[in-house]
Amino acid sequence: MVHKEREASSNRVGIVGLGLIGGSLGLDLQDKDWEVYGLVNRETTAEKAKARGLAHFISTDPKILSDCNLVILALPLDQLITPDLSLIEALPKDAVITDVGSVKSPVLKVWEKIHPLFIASHPMAGTTSAGVDAGLKGLFKGKAWIGTPTKDTNQYALDTVKKVATSLGSQWLISDADTHDQAVALISHLPVIISAALLRTIGQEKNQSVIELSKQLASSGFTDTTRVGGGNPQLGTSMAITNTSELIKGLASFRLSLEELEATITNKNWSKLQEELKHTKSLREKFISD
Amino acid sequence: MVHKEREASSNRVGIVGLGLIGGSLGLDLQDKDWEVYGLVNRETTAEKAKARGLAHFISTDPKILSDCNLVILALPLDQLITPDLSLIEALPKDAVITDVGSVKSPVLKVWEKIHPLFIASHPMAGTTSAGVDAGLKGLFKGKAWIGTPTKDTNQYALDTVKKVATSLGSQWLISDADTHDQAVALISHLPVIISAALLRTIGQEKNQSVIELSKQLASSGFTDTTRVGGGNPQLGTSMAITNTSELIKGLASFRLSLEELEATITNKNWSKLQEELKHTKSLREKFISD
Repeated sequence: MVHKEREASSNRVGIVGLGLIGGSLGLDLQDKDWEVYGLVNRETTAEKAKARGLAHFISTDPKILSDCNLVILALPLDQLITPDLSLIEALPKDAVITDVGSVKSPVLKVWEKIHPLFIASHPMAGTTSAGVDAGLKGLFKGKAWIGTPTKDTNQYALDTVKKVATSLGSQWLISDADTHDQAVALISHLPVIISAALLRTIGQEKNQSVIELSKQLASSGFTDTTRVGGGNPQLGTSMAITNTSELIKGLASFRLSLEELEATITNKNWSKLQEELKHTKSLREKFISD
Repeated sequence: MVHKEREASSNRVGIVGLGLIGGSLGLDLQDKDWEVYGLVNRETTAEKAKARGLAHFISTDPKILSDCNLVILALPLDQLITPDLSLIEALPKDAVITDVGSVKSPVLKVWEKIHPLFIASHPMAGTTSAGVDAGLKGLFKGKAWIGTPTKDTNQYALDTVKKVATSLGSQWLISDADTHDQAVALISHLPVIISAALLRTIGQEKNQSVIELSKQLASSGFTDTTRVGGGNPQLGTSMAITNTSELIKGLASFRLSLEELEATITNKNWSKLQEELKHTKSLREKFISD
């Protein structure tokens, strides 16, 4: 850990929470000419974060944020939506504030009333790991980072967050919060539940020799398809809590889509199934390149 | 391509089909002291396979198999289940014959009547690529390769296929064909249809700005979960054709599992959802290690 004297600086960033996203931000921003102040909940977390050098200064006292001109709230969604009063009181009135939550409408609704320079944002940089040991350098490079401004958003604040995102190698995107939440329901939250349902299906198999062989045969296809459903349970739950209605819409649409494929198989309409799989192959190519 | 004179050898392997699996076998077995004879359907494929050096000798004439003491049928499932008469006639009566199909009961039913030294086997080494350009060295290393003998299976033939599998670095497993087909339905075929249904769901989204943002946001979670559903349409279709009843059973079980998770979300029973996701996380850890 670097022990610096606190001195006047216009590049003081506070990071609230030093888990995967917060810790990774701390590591990267220290390399980018920022003086980094980390706020965590527990002393034991503070000690671990200091040992890992996740920020220049680390404390459990919200006052550590008092001289920051940018504060990044890298907190779980539930803590973002019902923030501690002590945190709110510690945020400088003239600092730009942003969050990194994966759902934007509920966060924006709460925070646009709390702080005039709040920017709701979402770096798409989740992995399955979490906690103070999870942060790593270069996590945001090449990833999308979405800002969801409203007509009342302060332009200077938006530019400040954009600069941070692009300085870490992220691709900065702008969207309205509702469109963002619908898109992440489809491409992020829905896959978690579907992938979890696949794991539950295997979990409900009764034939022991099938289970044992399945364990031995599980290869890349199964590994890939079940990765997000076997990820962080807290994260999956808070996605569902905060994006419930979009997720339910997505699930209904998925169920219909699955039933149509299932009928194609039950009816042994193989030429139609092959057409469907050609279609999904081309859909995937439009969405991503491996 | 290596031009060798044909000479007496007890290590002559014929490979029927030089796509991903056949081509990879050809590349590896040439390094393992086998004289490799490749049989393909079309002259243009033969030329490409020669240019890639996928076998020592390559022909479109089944007679190329006449002196082989091992023949590996690396054909699509439909061609395995309704084999060409010219192929059957060209197989030496004293050669060991095996296949590499991903479903075993229907293959076994056909081939145990055709050849006394037939071994139904399945190397778990699929990727999304296919065709004469797909084969690559070392594809089987560290992968499971399952043999599904019956009480009538010739032990020498089984040992021969096992030796080939282990010589290429595969882990050799034994199972009965029905258990194999149930296991691959769960861990391989079911994920393909579920993953395809997820892609169809996105394909059916009507809101253009949601689609555009989804394309920009699609990250590792979506990439992983949709990989097998955006794979080879012929392969997916032939899995469904040949393993229909097990796949339909798996789909019914998955639908129930998904409906239970969906109800948990609709009822906003978040503690139960978190328990479910803890359970799927631990299930996945029992099945695979990333």
